[in-house]
Amino acid sequence: MRFFSDNAALVHPKVMQAIIDANDVDTAYDGDRWSARLDAEFSALFGQDVAVLWVATGTAANCLALTSICQPHQGVICHREAHIEVDECGAPGFYTGGAKLMLLEGEGAKVSPGAVADLLASIRDDVHQVQAAALSITNATEYGLVYSPAEVAALSAVCRQHGLGLHMDGARFANAVASLGCHPADVTVRAGVDVLSFGFAKNGGMGAEALVYFDPGMAAAARYRRKRAGHLQSKGRFLAAQLLAMLEGDLWLDNARAANAAAQNIAEAAPDRLLHQVQANEIFVRLTSTEAATLRDQGFDFYDWGEGAARIVTSWHHSAEDVVPLAKAIAAL
Amino acid sequence: MRFFSDNAALVHPKVMQAIIDANDVDTAYDGDRWSARLDAEFSALFGQDVAVLWVATGTAANCLALTSICQPHQGVICHREAHIEVDECGAPGFYTGGAKLMLLEGEGAKVSPGAVADLLASIRDDVHQVQAAALSITNATEYGLVYSPAEVAALSAVCRQHGLGLHMDGARFANAVASLGCHPADVTVRAGVDVLSFGFAKNGGMGAEALVYFDPGMAAAARYRRKRAGHLQSKGRFLAAQLLAMLEGDLWLDNARAANAAAQNIAEAAPDRLLHQVQANEIFVRLTSTEAATLRDQGFDFYDWGEGAARIVTSWHHSAEDVVPLAKAIAAL
Amino acid sequence: MRFFSDNAALVHPKVMQAIIDANDVDTAYDGDRWSARLDAEFSALFGQDVAVLWVATGTAANCLALTSICQPHQGVICHREAHIEVDECGAPGFYTGGAKLMLLEGEGAKVSPGAVADLLASIRDDVHQVQAAALSITNATEYGLVYSPAEVAALSAVCRQHGLGLHMDGARFANAVASLGCHPADVTVRAGVDVLSFGFAKNGGMGAEALVYFDPGMAAAARYRRKRAGHLQSKGRFLAAQLLAMLEGDLWLDNARAANAAAQNIAEAAPDRLLHQVQANEIFVRLTSTEAATLRDQGFDFYDWGEGAARIVTSWHHSAEDVVPLAKAIAAL
Amino acid sequence: MRFFSDNAALVHPKVMQAIIDANDVDTAYDGDRWSARLDAEFSALFGQDVAVLWVATGTAANCLALTSICQPHQGVICHREAHIEVDECGAPGFYTGGAKLMLLEGEGAKVSPGAVADLLASIRDDVHQVQAAALSITNATEYGLVYSPAEVAALSAVCRQHGLGLHMDGARFANAVASLGCHPADVTVRAGVDVLSFGFAKNGGMGAEALVYFDPGMAAAARYRRKRAGHLQSKGRFLAAQLLAMLEGDLWLDNARAANAAAQNIAEAAPDRLLHQVQANEIFVRLTSTEAATLRDQGFDFYDWGEGAARIVTSWHHSAEDVVPLAKAIAAL
Repeated sequence: MRFFSDNAALVHPKVMQAIIDANDVDTAYDGDRWSARLDAEFSALFGQDVAVLWVATGTAANCLALTSICQPHQGVICHREAHIEVDECGAPGFYTGGAKLMLLEGEGAKVSPGAVADLLASIRDDVHQVQAAALSITNATEYGLVYSPAEVAALSAVCRQHGLGLHMDGARFANAVASLGCHPADVTVRAGVDVLSFGFAKNGGMGAEALVYFDPGMAAAARYRRKRAGHLQSKGRFLAAQLLAMLEGDLWLDNARAANAAAQNIAEAAPDRLLHQVQANEIFVRLTSTEAATLRDQGFDFYDWGEGAARIVTSWHHSAEDVVPLAKAIAAL
Repeated sequence: MRFFSDNAALVHPKVMQAIIDANDVDTAYDGDRWSARLDAEFSALFGQDVAVLWVATGTAANCLALTSICQPHQGVICHREAHIEVDECGAPGFYTGGAKLMLLEGEGAKVSPGAVADLLASIRDDVHQVQAAALSITNATEYGLVYSPAEVAALSAVCRQHGLGLHMDGARFANAVASLGCHPADVTVRAGVDVLSFGFAKNGGMGAEALVYFDPGMAAAARYRRKRAGHLQSKGRFLAAQLLAMLEGDLWLDNARAANAAAQNIAEAAPDRLLHQVQANEIFVRLTSTEAATLRDQGFDFYDWGEGAARIVTSWHHSAEDVVPLAKAIAAL
Repeated sequence: MRFFSDNAALVHPKVMQAIIDANDVDTAYDGDRWSARLDAEFSALFGQDVAVLWVATGTAANCLALTSICQPHQGVICHREAHIEVDECGAPGFYTGGAKLMLLEGEGAKVSPGAVADLLASIRDDVHQVQAAALSITNATEYGLVYSPAEVAALSAVCRQHGLGLHMDGARFANAVASLGCHPADVTVRAGVDVLSFGFAKNGGMGAEALVYFDPGMAAAARYRRKRAGHLQSKGRFLAAQLLAMLEGDLWLDNARAANAAAQNIAEAAPDRLLHQVQANEIFVRLTSTEAATLRDQGFDFYDWGEGAARIVTSWHHSAEDVVPLAKAIAAL
Repeated sequence: MRFFSDNAALVHPKVMQAIIDANDVDTAYDGDRWSARLDAEFSALFGQDVAVLWVATGTAANCLALTSICQPHQGVICHREAHIEVDECGAPGFYTGGAKLMLLEGEGAKVSPGAVADLLASIRDDVHQVQAAALSITNATEYGLVYSPAEVAALSAVCRQHGLGLHMDGARFANAVASLGCHPADVTVRAGVDVLSFGFAKNGGMGAEALVYFDPGMAAAARYRRKRAGHLQSKGRFLAAQLLAMLEGDLWLDNARAANAAAQNIAEAAPDRLLHQVQANEIFVRLTSTEAATLRDQGFDFYDWGEGAARIVTSWHHSAEDVVPLAKAIAAL
């Protein structure tokens, strides 16, 4: 059983069916009848007018978002372990034309308002130093922790005070919302987020994410940049259809709840091993290499996470039957 | 009946089935068992070792290809009506870091060795002028004309003489090969092409193109650049599966032949109206606005192409029943 | 006697003296007492508040200017023979992050409002095509022609109508103003120019140009971009001192008048040979290679300008004694 | 008396005289007779063939150098307090097209072979992480420490082992060589440096640095990139003349020795206050705000360096009479 990453998970049958159903000739790019519904459906979800672009990957969503709030000579503050810093092969530098990522420490890949303020205070206000234009946070974080609406609002307050834009990398946004039990707007637009990378590929999609602008006017330039980055697929209807299927009947939330529940099952089996609180669908556990080998011998696969630790990621398709054996195996170590 | 563009055509059932069949958990990105077969399958097709990367769009394929043969301070020669110049929203400038497209005239969007040589001769050999590093040609061209192996070889000879790399934008490569009746290697690697954007989205695919490096060593940097451009999809297996399905039993060639045959049917109905010879699956016809309206009233849709002309594009899914009525309607004008 | 280009001319003694006088310790970069006077002195010259940055070269001035009015995914309209297109090794692409130069024809490297409007009309309003954001004109042009205030105003009107910014490459702005006999504001800010590259290196300076923002607020980002481009010299006082010396007593205008007068002397000797009207300090003449050789044998040096033509450029330091012999020699051919 | 920075120091009279003497008409850009001598003179200095480009600033020299050894998708390792990271407003990101600076700790802004090796070992060898292509070190460092030939060679050995290029930011290279008492080649090309930013502006020049390629073939592309960055000044003879004057009779070494000696005078007065060993011309001292105020009241100016510390920089023009009073004032605190 594979617990490497939710990004390799199965495509949900409803999403696959939506893809099959979208195999009808229509206008190319985003001129089709599926894409045409996106703004309305996401606006309904967030309870306010938003503009939405589909893109194939989280990296594209994140980096297009950054170009909307950061000029090439400016900087984006993020956690030292943020995906944009660590796992995108320098994509932010490419998309922004060389803007600088400015790194913060913080437990569990979370950044605090104080840390942001301190970093801003440390930048000399002269032309020799890159000035920050934006803050990017990941919710849920790379360690599976969740920012609450109040935490996002506190970060947003620092941003407003210093004229920074606020981006949320929501590769696992669904897992965060499922964990928080809040309205998706509470932890985004109502808390001051300007632009959200709303991930679906890790949550039952095939290859579609939603780039959500809470100020619809900001999306205009992004549409050109999407094309310019080679991300305007000619059969965009197949991406739009995925997103619509995920919104339909809150499938995105059901899937995330399933993945989170699976994670909780495992976490409860290993309370003393946890390196981080398990709030979403990632479990980081202390695990010796011998113990890891023992689990692998039983058919459980996952990533080592440095020395003496491992990362286990659950997905929407992990049922109790999938997870309970792993939980038991860990408890039995 | 829509004849706007092949890029909005149906996904071929075999491709769709391959996507459905690929809905199995495997390693993310291009670590899966479908992606693992690409190099071998394309090498078999071309009769020599090639390295292949899947990407979602022709724009991404073209622009990644250009970064392999052109430094930011250099230039790429292409036709004034090349897709990279006219229809990619400046994507080549973005991907290459500001390299310059150097434009040539030429009937039917074809460039000639003489025109390339003349342009090269017109560039002063000093640091004030951008120096050309590459030539990019489109086969079939934006006007549906086809470069023969001999024509490509003649262009390649000019390239070799001046140290230029040679890229082929093959958004409709299948249609070109089907038209030429040659081996796909004849018009590419054996004729001196360095890198090929091998299009499938216009030929029955959903959202996958093959970026083919005839010198496999050139692909190494492109793999980083693909990731950096946000084009390394996490469920790459679904792109690889499309490409494999297209190669299987030469589906790519069958589809292209069907589209080309449909185009011939229409062309034969309007020999005096043709603005360009019909060699692939595009038909450019003289058509007054009244005539265009007459056709549209009968349910045929297509793009106007400037004043008094129209573009009709056939696709793999256009059967004789689809096309004969249009041919008759044109003949009856 | 060399008539290759004014860009290799002598530094005016008053400029050299100003450099010598600036050899006093002061704050680095642009914190010195010379740089501090620039905004006020140029504001006095233009009769309104402007913000001014010194830079070492016209290429840097032009390209920084373009970044102020054009985003990376947009385009800048200019003449096909504009310096930014032909002689800057792709610098606009580098500085803007890949924006596209969109080229116009026009006699004597001048662009007309109609040509600009036609080009704008030819761009499809969709994300596949680069949309123009700015117009850049050169005054005096690369062929020594001058735009009058009315001509600039007519171009500016088209720009305003379409939301374009307007840049003037004034590498020979002094020659243009001297030729027009107008106030420098008449042909710039009062005619709708947003940003001016005000050249001094071709007019008696050593290595300093003024980047003039008629909306001072636009200069803020340019200060960061100047640093980022490596153009914030630590001993900026030596650049500021050059600019101040050029403004003092209207030296810039005296020098330009001298160069223009020298050009008129030569032009009058060859009225039938002129390829372009001589309005500034460049003379383009029909000249066979035999005639050119005859002149060179007499010690006159200049550039060939294609087949059967030559370019002669006069400088501030060309006195009547320098020029009259050349005029006579041409007349005697 | 100002001890803010050597970058605001006087231009040495011999350099100024060379500038005055270069005020003769010659070919523009780098086609003049001064520029023509650079390769030979610097080759003589280093005892082997080198190719040299003049540029106006250290930022331009550093960043052009980096483009020679790092592709846009790669990274450059440097110290966290390196000038390229801290003081160039993101210029490396701009010049390289978004390459990443990868930061190391190290006492006195020095990096160690072990730290480089550790960082390299920490980078996953996959396309998700930026791979390092180069190491950039500063000699003398931002804290006035000096790398010995053996130390550079040890770093170079790590670079060779991992295929990295090696750049030396030598804004204060003269001070380093003067301090080491070695041949300039010992600490550069003989120790494995590929490209050197050889600074003169901080050492008595006006606005000229030498970008030195120890493999002359690497300079070819840099010449285009210099133009493209707007750094090819039309009257380049004035930059070349500065460099030649600095080499003449080893003025560069004399000036650096004078600055270093001045620094030693001050350092000896305050052995207990030193935060770093004084090896070149910078002195970092513990100094309370009261003590700093006391010195300033006596007419000594310098930068605070965070809380309770100050930076004092000496220049070639600081004589014993300039420095002894400061030394006494510090000793008397």
